[in-house]
Amino acid sequence: MDTDTISAISTPVGEGAIAIVRLSGPEAVARANKIFHGKELEQVASHTIHYGKLIDPKSNELVEEVMVSVMRAPKTFTREDIVEINCHGGLVSVNRVLELVLDSGVRLAEPGEFTKRAFLNGRIDLSQAEAVMDLIRAKTDRAMNVALKQMDGRLSQLIQQLRQQLLETVAQVEVNIDYPEYDDVEEMTNELMIENTKKVHQEIERLLQTAKQGKILREGLGTAIVGRPNVGKSSLMNALVHENKAIVTEVPGTTRDVIEEYVNVRGVPLRLIDTAGIRDTEDLVEKIGVERSRQVLQEADLILLVLNYGDELTEEDEKLFEAVQGMDVIVIVNKTDLPRKLDMDRLHEIAGEHTIVNTAIIEEEGIDQLETAISEIFFEGDLDTGDMTYVSNVRHVQLLNQAKEALEDAMRGMEEDMPIDIVQIDVRRTWELLGEIVGDSVSDSLLDQLFSQFCLGK
Amino acid sequence: MDTDTISAISTPVGEGAIAIVRLSGPEAVARANKIFHGKELEQVASHTIHYGKLIDPKSNELVEEVMVSVMRAPKTFTREDIVEINCHGGLVSVNRVLELVLDSGVRLAEPGEFTKRAFLNGRIDLSQAEAVMDLIRAKTDRAMNVALKQMDGRLSQLIQQLRQQLLETVAQVEVNIDYPEYDDVEEMTNELMIENTKKVHQEIERLLQTAKQGKILREGLGTAIVGRPNVGKSSLMNALVHENKAIVTEVPGTTRDVIEEYVNVRGVPLRLIDTAGIRDTEDLVEKIGVERSRQVLQEADLILLVLNYGDELTEEDEKLFEAVQGMDVIVIVNKTDLPRKLDMDRLHEIAGEHTIVNTAIIEEEGIDQLETAISEIFFEGDLDTGDMTYVSNVRHVQLLNQAKEALEDAMRGMEEDMPIDIVQIDVRRTWELLGEIVGDSVSDSLLDQLFSQFCLGK
Repeated sequence: MDTDTISAISTPVGEGAIAIVRLSGPEAVARANKIFHGKELEQVASHTIHYGKLIDPKSNELVEEVMVSVMRAPKTFTREDIVEINCHGGLVSVNRVLELVLDSGVRLAEPGEFTKRAFLNGRIDLSQAEAVMDLIRAKTDRAMNVALKQMDGRLSQLIQQLRQQLLETVAQVEVNIDYPEYDDVEEMTNELMIENTKKVHQEIERLLQTAKQGKILREGLGTAIVGRPNVGKSSLMNALVHENKAIVTEVPGTTRDVIEEYVNVRGVPLRLIDTAGIRDTEDLVEKIGVERSRQVLQEADLILLVLNYGDELTEEDEKLFEAVQGMDVIVIVNKTDLPRKLDMDRLHEIAGEHTIVNTAIIEEEGIDQLETAISEIFFEGDLDTGDMTYVSNVRHVQLLNQAKEALEDAMRGMEEDMPIDIVQIDVRRTWELLGEIVGDSVSDSLLDQLFSQFCLGK
Repeated sequence: MDTDTISAISTPVGEGAIAIVRLSGPEAVARANKIFHGKELEQVASHTIHYGKLIDPKSNELVEEVMVSVMRAPKTFTREDIVEINCHGGLVSVNRVLELVLDSGVRLAEPGEFTKRAFLNGRIDLSQAEAVMDLIRAKTDRAMNVALKQMDGRLSQLIQQLRQQLLETVAQVEVNIDYPEYDDVEEMTNELMIENTKKVHQEIERLLQTAKQGKILREGLGTAIVGRPNVGKSSLMNALVHENKAIVTEVPGTTRDVIEEYVNVRGVPLRLIDTAGIRDTEDLVEKIGVERSRQVLQEADLILLVLNYGDELTEEDEKLFEAVQGMDVIVIVNKTDLPRKLDMDRLHEIAGEHTIVNTAIIEEEGIDQLETAISEIFFEGDLDTGDMTYVSNVRHVQLLNQAKEALEDAMRGMEEDMPIDIVQIDVRRTWELLGEIVGDSVSDSLLDQLFSQFCLGK
């Protein structure tokens, strides 16, 4: 394990009142003390704050006026000594403080390295570490709640309970194999083993069932608004954005123009897919079959297909229905204030099972019904906001699926009366796969990969 | 004075490891305690840090896992009780924490209100308060040093010394007027008064002489690169940016495309003026006389006028020289690796006093000489980086100029043997004008206007 002292800027980049440079490691206090003029930091009590000046020991020049927090191991985030230097939140200021800290013999932290140390030092398990980043990236209240609970160890507890049950099963079997002479040990019969593994299997399935909602809560429901020109797509977009608190972010690593808007509709976080083409040039229909439009549709979890009540159903409309076949679609018949020309019978025919909502968006009619439809289609009207534990992480879903398969192998073996020490291998494999979720058995390279996705300073 | 409790997000907006929500005021600890589950914050010692959870008292729901710092008056930035809540640095997280704090009965702070309170409560004077924002906005090391010294009170001390000298002069005069019978009070003769005010006048002039350098240190030297197409303007820009550490910022409140680049050339911070037109379309010359080009030139403190050694001097070149008449110009004769066609005699004629530097930028020749020329033209080769106090703030420069004029009125009065109580009025006016710099006599509306330019949370 690394035992050097690391440092990084822990606040977002930009202009603000305060920025934080954080140090963690055995030398954190000593190094900070070398550049700090104020109290003797090595003498102060843990979890105390001190005003002072940072002075460059080489030039004796004033570098910054700061507040320094000293927190000693083990009651810290990393379980190492931590020093936080609060300086002024300017670009020059915070970089200058970081440089001074690095000059004092501290290494620049890698992305996520503080959290990695918290994991390696046993303060949190891997699923909790992953939740830290989910929490920071959360775009909606509910996404944050899911992360917060996972960080609190809810998922970990569930997983550890399942592993415990499997372990007891395996242990019992091993006792029976190794010490057949111990009559007083309750013999683990096949039936009892089947019963035990079935319970675990049910629980894994239940967790996997939360994954779809978990993904939505975490990433938002990718929503595309499609329809012919002038059916009211932009008005619909604006109505959704204005009625609900929207968070607009630029997607890092892409061109500036790709922005994402998040809106909360009755607790369902919609991620409005960047349908710039739709909004600006109204050309999606013309481009149906074109690569870009296909991508928009593929990305979407939900399609809002808008029709004009005052127009006849066109060939283009019918093509749209074909393009979204098999997807979750809400059909919006807009402009119901106009005289009807739309063939409703034909519409019901091609819409099939899809929910149809009538609106006159400019007149603010029907938006309520649309929002109800959105919340119903995904959460059957009652999204559990309370104590439920959601699996929201793709890595966790994959491991749960693999664990489920391994367990099914074991169960088949039991039913087919395979030798118990063969069955046991599959049970143990399930135990290990679940262990990877909480990080009990993960490779260094996986750890490196996971934590490299973190932001700097965390 | 406001005595309610205020709160704001004090870290830059964005994704980061940590964000801070700060509270200040008499109720800061009590309000934070209402939402914090952990130690009883009203019982803890000052300047201590506590881990705990924020719980919404209405719903009993977990809002965030946080570290809370409690700092009690008067040893705080605002001289009020301060609580800093360190939460996860996500958009949702920090806004949720702020909302919870506001729900607990705390008012959202106005921009700069924390610093305003530090000023109103006498912890810092006005010039120190202004330095706080200068420090955060600083784009170069030297700009930060100027702000840091001003924040440390260097300018304030100088100003207060001058005011003290004026006050003693006035007091002496008043004693002579009010109590002519006191013979033992040294009579303030006209000569002595003239001597005293002359010293103050010299000191004000000396401060005003630092203003030009101060402005450059603070804002960077607005630098425009001009020249005909294909003389090497882009290469020059790139050479300056690549050889020196550049900070690139978007200018808030303007369109996205206006960016500024800062480079340090031998300690001179150059602010390369957004010469997008020059870089991209090479059309400045065509547009000489056009509004936009005139603006670029007006904004500039320094013109780098580039010519092609391998070309004859054209009419356009001569027009450029006319356009920059009276400005600080460095003439760069580029592409000296080409066969000479430039008429050097004519060039020296039209260049007059301007420094001429020969370069072959692509071959990396002459850039050193150019950088020397830049540093010499503005700092006569040795910029004081040490103990000098710079006046860098426009408001301060204006007040110093007014104070200087008032003092000159007084000095004229003395020389003309005006009645002493008339002369005194001008001396007192000088004293008041200097007082406005440190905020001894400023109106509420000026304060409001000054602090409204601060960032939120400071």
